[in-house]
Amino acid sequence: MRMYDCISAKKAGRELSKKEIEYIVGGFTEGSIPDYQMSAFLMAVCLKGMTEKETLFLTMAMAESGDVLDLSPIEGKKVDKHSTGGVGDKTTLIVAPIVAALKVPVAKMSGRGLGHTGGTIDKLESFPGFVTELSEKKFYAQVNQIHLALMAQTANLAPADKKIYALRDVTATVDSIPLIASSIMSKKLAAGADVIVLDVKAGSGAFMKTEEEAVLLAKEMVKIGNDAGKKTCAVVTDMSQPLGYAIGNILEVKEAIRALRGEGAKDLMEASYTLAAQMLLGAGRVVDFNEGYALAESAVKSGAAFEKFCEFVRAQGGDESYARNPEKFARAAFVREVKAEKKGYITRMQTEEIGMVSLLLGVGRETKESVIDLSAGIQICVKIGDYVKAGDTIALLHANDNTKMAEAEIRLLDAVIIEENAKKSPKHVLAIL
Amino acid sequence: MRMYDCISAKKAGRELSKKEIEYIVGGFTEGSIPDYQMSAFLMAVCLKGMTEKETLFLTMAMAESGDVLDLSPIEGKKVDKHSTGGVGDKTTLIVAPIVAALKVPVAKMSGRGLGHTGGTIDKLESFPGFVTELSEKKFYAQVNQIHLALMAQTANLAPADKKIYALRDVTATVDSIPLIASSIMSKKLAAGADVIVLDVKAGSGAFMKTEEEAVLLAKEMVKIGNDAGKKTCAVVTDMSQPLGYAIGNILEVKEAIRALRGEGAKDLMEASYTLAAQMLLGAGRVVDFNEGYALAESAVKSGAAFEKFCEFVRAQGGDESYARNPEKFARAAFVREVKAEKKGYITRMQTEEIGMVSLLLGVGRETKESVIDLSAGIQICVKIGDYVKAGDTIALLHANDNTKMAEAEIRLLDAVIIEENAKKSPKHVLAIL
Repeated sequence: MRMYDCISAKKAGRELSKKEIEYIVGGFTEGSIPDYQMSAFLMAVCLKGMTEKETLFLTMAMAESGDVLDLSPIEGKKVDKHSTGGVGDKTTLIVAPIVAALKVPVAKMSGRGLGHTGGTIDKLESFPGFVTELSEKKFYAQVNQIHLALMAQTANLAPADKKIYALRDVTATVDSIPLIASSIMSKKLAAGADVIVLDVKAGSGAFMKTEEEAVLLAKEMVKIGNDAGKKTCAVVTDMSQPLGYAIGNILEVKEAIRALRGEGAKDLMEASYTLAAQMLLGAGRVVDFNEGYALAESAVKSGAAFEKFCEFVRAQGGDESYARNPEKFARAAFVREVKAEKKGYITRMQTEEIGMVSLLLGVGRETKESVIDLSAGIQICVKIGDYVKAGDTIALLHANDNTKMAEAEIRLLDAVIIEENAKKSPKHVLAIL
Repeated sequence: MRMYDCISAKKAGRELSKKEIEYIVGGFTEGSIPDYQMSAFLMAVCLKGMTEKETLFLTMAMAESGDVLDLSPIEGKKVDKHSTGGVGDKTTLIVAPIVAALKVPVAKMSGRGLGHTGGTIDKLESFPGFVTELSEKKFYAQVNQIHLALMAQTANLAPADKKIYALRDVTATVDSIPLIASSIMSKKLAAGADVIVLDVKAGSGAFMKTEEEAVLLAKEMVKIGNDAGKKTCAVVTDMSQPLGYAIGNILEVKEAIRALRGEGAKDLMEASYTLAAQMLLGAGRVVDFNEGYALAESAVKSGAAFEKFCEFVRAQGGDESYARNPEKFARAAFVREVKAEKKGYITRMQTEEIGMVSLLLGVGRETKESVIDLSAGIQICVKIGDYVKAGDTIALLHANDNTKMAEAEIRLLDAVIIEENAKKSPKHVLAIL
């Protein structure tokens, strides 16, 4: 087999066999296929696509390129949840304790954030003492005991994906649905859960800018998961504005705590209950979506979800008193109010830009080596559809470095569009697949 | 400027600016743009194409990446001729002396062959003493004196093209008309002639398999040449069977000598006269194509073209007695007759395969380091349209290594298709642009 012929076939739009795809992934990962051949191949995939079969083979080959977790020591149907990422997305912190409180085992691996916000791991490390580097044994035992554990992704999870992604990132070959879908799903398959619930974001703050694109990606991933023998479903949720009101590690943790105490924002709760319902349904804990949704609501209302969250923080070494008294968390040294410059309706938000403003304030990592500022962030005070008067506060900027505030304020004002005529506020859950 | 954005733009089908293309060619040639980005870009070009402007900018940037010959020390309009390559193509050996005999200066640079046959340089080195490594001074002086000189391509001619071609060759990005056209034309522009006549081959022995593809490539190259300020035209000629009867270095030189003496095969002479007529017309030596064609014929008939050839061989240090007595040339140690296995009409030839058989016999280079066997080759005895009886000789295989003969015979028999019903013999000149 020759890589030249595989590139040539894909360029001509021919379907590659399982063997050819395994050869490509294996050869590139071990280094016998050079970068320059792989990047030509990836560009051909971007422009010619991949069939359902090819995408499945690619996903499987990447999943099997490193460790594949065997979660059989955990009793019951293990569920995992993955979000394609957005601004202010703290649903994992809410959904995982809800589902665990209902005795469905949540065994989740999570990566660190790279980009405008920290990842779930970074957020949880806001709790003093919280440990995310668990041994597999401890991970399994904790799920068996309290139905919930979260560990940092091991270095050898889908190494092929890691190497391919790094090349895509510098060769303008990121935006291909089969490549995005296989990249995400390879890690989910390697992580070993029986049930996978995907949260695909759509809108100005998401990778997929339109609902149509997000539905395409969601369908592709659901197909892969089910073809690979995992019960997989997806929810497409709105990212035309930040989810909830908080952006930033500690600010999001505090918002998640409020949500678990029954004081969550409408959009955040609708997304969280929908995801929880899908997880409960996938695990066979409920017979239909509506039962799952109602059960998730009741787990919050009864306080069971919040108690599960505290138990989870404690189990991983974190100081649960911070969950019970969130005012203990560190606050940023500087807070600036951003005020509306004119009256009118909030009609649109440039949500990705809002994410970039939070990055400017110190929330995320610009490079792998950056240190995250846990207390920095943005509290958005308005939603699309709201009416504001000139001088009304539309956001609070939190930072420990005061020198970036002026630029952040200008950029945030530009990113929140105020117009004379109201536009309908967006739906929160766009599709359930 | 970032290469990432250039790749991304081409992938989206956007037109690149002159600056962007110069940045890509310059950066890749000097090494600041890595192979893996360039190969992704090249694949995007293969699948998304290039506009006329982009192709011109690419050609110019590659032409100017190294030495550009200044032929102004040569008097008159200098003409150059280029063939896209085929099996048994010895037209340069015939056309150049015809045109020079008519006092039009032919200043030609030529590469060594890589592939199934030697290049013009290799063929001329069949003459003992023939030197192709000329200084520019000697090259100019010789053209001024006898209107004809041929030198080996200097190492620093269009180095960008050399580097890009090497990458295309291993990333399945060769077959793109803008990339092929710019590669050829960058070298022609750097070689400095005023008039460029292109011979684009079409058929089973050529890179372009159909007349339509060949015409597209020819048009693209003619546009580039004229846009770059060179008088450029093209002839599309048939390569559905070997040109003339000989394949191999000495065998082709001998056939060229016969042609210059007025005993050339019909297809070979029609192609040669057509090319010569275009060169004479381009240089302003004649007022129309027909006058050029007639003048070329008369140069052969009068013996002037043959005498010019002898003078040319002598001027570059070669032993012209070999031209006057071609039986002096070395002969291969073994000659095998290949006989028709059945009666019928020759309807098709797998001409590229016939070229590969000649490579097997030692004619060309498999790698840059291979030593060419000057006396090896094939004499084809039949043309498409001919009738043969079983046992008639269809070819003579010449080799110095007898061990390859059996395989060569089997492959040659398979490559010459004999069928019951005759097919029309192909036209020799398909289009003049």
